[in-house]
Amino acid sequence: MSAFDAYLPRQRERVDAALAAYFPADTPHPHRLVEAVRYSLLGGGKRIRPIVLLAACEAVGGDTARALPFACAVEMIHAYSLIHDDLPSMDDDDLRRGRPTSHVVFGEGLAILAGDALLSEAFHLLARTAERDPRPRRALRAMNEIAEAAGIHGMVGGQAADIAAQGSGTDLAMVEFIHVRKTGALLLAAVRAGALLGGAHAPTLKALTRYGERLGLVFQIADDILGAEAPASLTGKETGRDDILNKATFPAVIGLPAAKQRARELLEQALAALNRFDAQADPLRDIVRFVVGRACAP
Amino acid sequence: MSAFDAYLPRQRERVDAALAAYFPADTPHPHRLVEAVRYSLLGGGKRIRPIVLLAACEAVGGDTARALPFACAVEMIHAYSLIHDDLPSMDDDDLRRGRPTSHVVFGEGLAILAGDALLSEAFHLLARTAERDPRPRRALRAMNEIAEAAGIHGMVGGQAADIAAQGSGTDLAMVEFIHVRKTGALLLAAVRAGALLGGAHAPTLKALTRYGERLGLVFQIADDILGAEAPASLTGKETGRDDILNKATFPAVIGLPAAKQRARELLEQALAALNRFDAQADPLRDIVRFVVGRACAP
Repeated sequence: MSAFDAYLPRQRERVDAALAAYFPADTPHPHRLVEAVRYSLLGGGKRIRPIVLLAACEAVGGDTARALPFACAVEMIHAYSLIHDDLPSMDDDDLRRGRPTSHVVFGEGLAILAGDALLSEAFHLLARTAERDPRPRRALRAMNEIAEAAGIHGMVGGQAADIAAQGSGTDLAMVEFIHVRKTGALLLAAVRAGALLGGAHAPTLKALTRYGERLGLVFQIADDILGAEAPASLTGKETGRDDILNKATFPAVIGLPAAKQRARELLEQALAALNRFDAQADPLRDIVRFVVGRACAP
Repeated sequence: MSAFDAYLPRQRERVDAALAAYFPADTPHPHRLVEAVRYSLLGGGKRIRPIVLLAACEAVGGDTARALPFACAVEMIHAYSLIHDDLPSMDDDDLRRGRPTSHVVFGEGLAILAGDALLSEAFHLLARTAERDPRPRRALRAMNEIAEAAGIHGMVGGQAADIAAQGSGTDLAMVEFIHVRKTGALLLAAVRAGALLGGAHAPTLKALTRYGERLGLVFQIADDILGAEAPASLTGKETGRDDILNKATFPAVIGLPAAKQRARELLEQALAALNRFDAQADPLRDIVRFVVGRACAP
């Protein structure tokens, strides 16, 4: 067992505990909305985005305790996007992480509102964290990165392009366009926000940005590969679901072997971007190895 | 013609121009998403929330040019909430301001994303405005007020309670609970954010908070009265639509005469809260008179 095998669960527990505290089960009203929020936010998940934010902060010698609310906000934004992406008018998924999706359990209206609540509360958390900060400059830069990733040139734009591409023929450029926005933007923002909060200077931030770009893209390629190959027991989703929707994925456009080759190249590039860092960046190295390893077993 | 008759259109134009600039029509991609955002955001509307934010800033002697991005963010949050509230799984409205609603024109998926984009971009605008501010303390307080109003204890919670109350019997306490969150919270936040940005001190902020609370509640009562009485040509919505949905409204619970009486009382209380202010608060006085006057013609 490597040190990383302990690192991931430890950080995941830290994030899970903080997230649960933001939405107490006994919130009096509206109870059903809080239930829907908790169902999606606390129902498992690898917590890669918040952990990568904390790891980037650590890599530059920052205080991860101060970065924790930002890590949670990023995970809240991720959770909102999953709820909305799963809706009947979007990807129409009934299953997520092996459980019925939000709209199946709570109905469409409440599922939409649970997503809206998570997105709003993510920014509420960021705003009050920055407000309490005696020197909020770093917090504001981090918040701006996260907000931009969520917006029209990031996640929302990516999802709109993804929906538009469904059913029609697509090419590699369009797949990359979608992935960079839909998945890559928030992962990159997590890396950059963590680095900024940790006090990274320009050259360090630039190196971590290169890492974050590779991580964001390879994360989605690995997810595409898993979606095409892995049994539902591993992904918690129907195998070949992307195929049925005729979704824009790397394996669909360039084939499985080429997709795996591309993933391995991106892994090498991500690791190369970390050359200037010492052992403090080992969690970042391990995270990208973990992401690629799941999809491309050696 | 009073000075106010010129004030409203002038401020509205100012807000409209700023909003249009945030979402240029020639944004290359994803074009259809930008179109959906512009359709809802720039398709008319009284702009009461942003105007009230600017007026509150003015009332305390602040610089309204610095408050303009905050005013626009508040309107973007309002526009997102209308798009989502109109969805088939919520209020299922086909008509808004006399035009087909977003999901009728763009389909449900893109309508949800247009709302998500507006909410995300509102916070992106707030974050980058605060980041550029050399002394961001006031901006952060204002942002926090706005974020809280949007969230689970504000608009989203109010809409969830509203949906839950549909079809079931309801009482005055529940109607107030819903209205205070669904409509009141953002209006109050607009008043407080404007005051904070203008540099209001505690007693001034307290007085304006009293004003904002009354304005928020009377705004929704007036809307309920108009919805029950006014022809579709005035409201842009089907007359008696709230009745059909068996919605929680003041006229439904206490009757029209009592609802109008309550509106007049709240008007007096809102004006009384402004007693300490000179003519700089005249726009705030005129706004609440305008809101009540539309529903309760003398």
